[in-house]
Order: sequence, then C-alpha cells, then structure tokens
Amino acid sequence: MQTCIIETISEFKKWRAALRQDQTLGLVPTMGALHSGHGYLIESARRECARLVVSLFVNPLQFAPGEDYATYPRDLESDLAFCTGRGVDILFAPGEQEMYPRPQRTFANVEVLSDGLCGQFRPGHFRGVATVVLKLLNIVGPDRAYFGEKDAQQLALVRRMVMDLNLSVEIVPIPIVRGEDGLAYSSRNQHLTPEQRKVASALYRALQAADRMASVVEDPTQVKEAGLAVLRQEPLIRVEYVEVVDPEEMQPVERISGPVRIVGAIWIGSTRLIDNVLSEGMGKTLRPGENKMRRK
Amino acid sequence: MQTCIIETISEFKKWRAALRQDQTLGLVPTMGALHSGHGYLIESARRECARLVVSLFVNPLQFAPGEDYATYPRDLESDLAFCTGRGVDILFAPGEQEMYPRPQRTFANVEVLSDGLCGQFRPGHFRGVATVVLKLLNIVGPDRAYFGEKDAQQLALVRRMVMDLNLSVEIVPIPIVRGEDGLAYSSRNQHLTPEQRKVASALYRALQAADRMASVVEDPTQVKEAGLAVLRQEPLIRVEYVEVVDPEEMQPVERISGPVRIVGAIWIGSTRLIDNVLSEGMGKTLRPGENKMRRK
Repeated sequence: MQTCIIETISEFKKWRAALRQDQTLGLVPTMGALHSGHGYLIESARRECARLVVSLFVNPLQFAPGEDYATYPRDLESDLAFCTGRGVDILFAPGEQEMYPRPQRTFANVEVLSDGLCGQFRPGHFRGVATVVLKLLNIVGPDRAYFGEKDAQQLALVRRMVMDLNLSVEIVPIPIVRGEDGLAYSSRNQHLTPEQRKVASALYRALQAADRMASVVEDPTQVKEAGLAVLRQEPLIRVEYVEVVDPEEMQPVERISGPVRIVGAIWIGSTRLIDNVLSEGMGKTLRPGENKMRRK
Repeated sequence: MQTCIIETISEFKKWRAALRQDQTLGLVPTMGALHSGHGYLIESARRECARLVVSLFVNPLQFAPGEDYATYPRDLESDLAFCTGRGVDILFAPGEQEMYPRPQRTFANVEVLSDGLCGQFRPGHFRGVATVVLKLLNIVGPDRAYFGEKDAQQLALVRRMVMDLNLSVEIVPIPIVRGEDGLAYSSRNQHLTPEQRKVASALYRALQAADRMASVVEDPTQVKEAGLAVLRQEPLIRVEYVEVVDPEEMQPVERISGPVRIVGAIWIGSTRLIDNVLSEGMGKTLRPGENKMRRK
C-alpha cells in the first residue's frame, strides 16, 4: 500500500470526514527522520487501528533559541518510503505556515510535570510539545495516539494533559527500542561520529547500574551515584542530569518506596541524548526474566 | 419539554454518543444564576441547533483569592426551571470534584489577549476561563458554542483559542441584553441595592459618550476622557478601567483608525460591573438606526 501525503489541514479533514465511525484511527506523531523506534510505534498502531496516520512536523515551538531546530534531520522522501513499507495510510506533513498561520497566542502548559529534568535545561520546550500535541490531536482526531517511552517526561505530560483537558483519545505508551549495545534509538543518533557512537551506550549502562542499586537501597542519592559512576568513566560524555522520579508527575523522590523512573540526559559533543528505565524499586516483585540480571 | 439534569461526565458522554451525527449540538456555557442575557443566548442557540446543552459550573479556577467565588449566586432549581421553559435538552451541571478530580496541572494560556483590562485586575482569571472552556468543549463536543458580548475579552480569547488550537467548534457571539436604562444584564446585578442599581447605568452612558467622541476624534485618550467624565459624576462609582482596544487582540490602540471596542469596568460598593460597545470609529459607515443616536 502506498502511503498518501497530505500537507494541509483542510485536505486532511476531508479524508477524516470520509472515514466510517467504526474505523479506529491511530496517530503516531513524529518529527520525521524515522527510525526503528518509530517503526515499532507504527507496527503497534497498525495492529490496533483500522486506519493509521503518521504526522511529521518539526515543531519550531519546542526548540529553544540556540537549539538544533535548523539542523534537525529532515528527509521527507525517505520518511515517506518508510511509511509506505509499513502500512501507514496517511503521512500528514503540514508546513510551519499551516500549523501556525498567525502568531500563536494560545499555549498548553502542564505545570509541575514540565518543570524539572529536560524542562529545566530546555526552557519552553514542553510548552511547545504540549501545544503542538494538542493541536495535532484536535486536527487528526485519533482514537489512539502512540508515544515512545524514550521521551518519558513528554509521555507523562501528554497523558496528564489528556486527563486534565478531558480529551477522549487513548494515549498508548510504546517501549524503547535499543541497539545491540543498549543505546536507545533516536533521530539524533545519526549526528554521532563512530567514536561518539561507541561511548553513547554508557548512558543505558549507567541507568542499568542505577536500576540495580535501586533494587537494594531506598536512597535515591545512592542510586543516582551508581549511574553517575558509570558515566564518569567516559571523558567524551558531559552529564546533564541523572534523576530518580515518580513515574506520574516526574518529580524527584526522597525515598524509593515503589516504582520509580530513572532518567538521564547527556551530551556527547554537540549531540544531546536522553534515556530512562522504569525501576520497580526495592523489595518489589520483579518482572519475569529480569530477576537474574538485577540480582547478580 | 422538561430539561434533563446531568451531573457526571460519563453520563453526559452516554447521552452525547446516542445523538445522530446530523443533529447539530449547541452549547451555552454558564455559571448559572440565569437571567435574560442568558435567555437570549439560549434562544439564539435553540433556533440554530437540533440539540441544546446549557452547562452550569461556577469555576473556582477563574476566581482569584479574595474574589466572590463563595458568594457568587447559585440556585440550581431556578436555573433548571429557566432552562425547561426555553427548550434546553440538557442542563450539564458537574460538581467541582467531577471537573477537577485531581490537582489540575494543565492550563490553557492565551497570551497577549489575557494580559490587559480585566486580566490585569484579576490575576489568573483568564487562565481559568480558557482552561474550563477548553474542558467543557472537549466534554460536550458541540458544533456551536454561544458566548455573550458583554464579556468581550473572554469572547475574544475563546475565539483565538479555538483558532490557535484547531478546535472544530464554531464560536457564536451574542449581543448584550440591556435593561431599559441601558445597564447590561449580569448575574452580579442582583447584588446591587436599589440606590446602587440606579447609578449603575452610568457605565453604559459613559461608553456611549466615549463612542460618540470616537466618531469625531482619532485620539483614544480623548475618547476615554469622555467616558470617564460621565463616571466621575457618580460618587458611588469607583472606576477600574476605561480603555479603547482593537477588537481582536484587545490591545489599547494608539490611534482610532477603524473599529475599536470601548470597554469599561467599575466597582459599586463590593460589586464589580463590566460593559463594552463596539465603535466604528471616525468617518466609518455607521450601522443603520444607530446614526441618529450617535450623532445627536
């Protein structure tokens, strides 16, 4: 099946209006530069929905001044081929003028959840994310929207926004896809030199080390320290943060008394990478198959 | 026809889901204490829509600390009777716990349009208004929503939010309904003593004087002064603001070169009243029937 590109909201609405009411519509919002991580989101959505839209919009609103908006990878032809091979009905790729035809005055702010972690280092980022996601949900009107767990703070924020604003869409979280060495797939990985690419996997190893520590201590400082110790061994890596947060509001915990998300952000050269793991914490039932790895 | 009260979102959604797709749904959002002004909104909506919902929710989020949230008039029985007499299908009256079941983290902010006029004197007010209107639109899913022109800044803000967030609802503005002496209908008028009620009409007279001045001068300062001169004659009145703004973004104009909205807010005792007129400005074609009044 050939994926069809739609670039205007009015044309999209025509397509949308022609759908039968019983046809479940899925949305995978992306900024393009599609990779296996997106592929996994698309496959999950494809299985669950009768019709599938991938949106492609590099949202200027979520890049702070000086960030990589200009250099963010863009390749529409290759993204279209990627979608066509995976049963996507529509690649919705509006231009900036289509999404922001007048000065944008209205913004969705998700307080508390936006404040820490990436929000602290990327001013305005999550305001831009929440606003564009809300616009896309309103335009596309999906029954289900799929978000990767790699952007854990974004996922938590979108889920909270959907609840707080009484949106009727179901937000479906999709697990992180990793390379053989554990590096989470990201469009930004393609900026890494071979040497940088090699050390990048330390981020996941650091989070695993922190996760192992979280299974035996309650103190988040010790957990963070276990992760930081791994990262310090790589001189090419500059740590932005490693943090232990509650999975719903993404706030640092004072004591690990249940499931927590261990999150990290690093710089390698001029490339910023993020990753996270969900940790069950101390004394909790571990997921089958993970037991040995954790305790060894 | 007996209006049916629905107090929960889930029950409302059941009612909504049973509507036929070709049945236009209208929404009149209110805070209750329904009066002839609301009556006019309801009648307009009734004529244009197959099904009509009036929402009744005194939204705590739009009252600043120290404002009249506790004393805002509430009378569900009389509001229900009001709706029943006017062909309203559903009075949607959710409680605070139903609308805000968890700490609200997500807010809609309409920048620029929220900053001046009432926004300057009621911190957080328009954030609360935009957020609750967005929630109500998402819950009710109307084709058309009706707002009174008395709350001109609110109307401008809701219209802008709908455009900026790509909501598919049509916002319908409804003209102000006035008493014989010109006082705009407002739920808060019932707080006025007979003596206060008598001087309250000075607000509209002030706006009319300003409007007449705007038909002959370009300088907004002179226009404001014409309004203020009327208000100064009433010792019971404390002026909050009189301003001349562009009707779309509600920003003060430096020169009157086209239609402007002349807006005012006053206090009489502990009651705050607002009102506004749309002025064509100097040398513009006046609306039929208004010519004589304006020029006399």
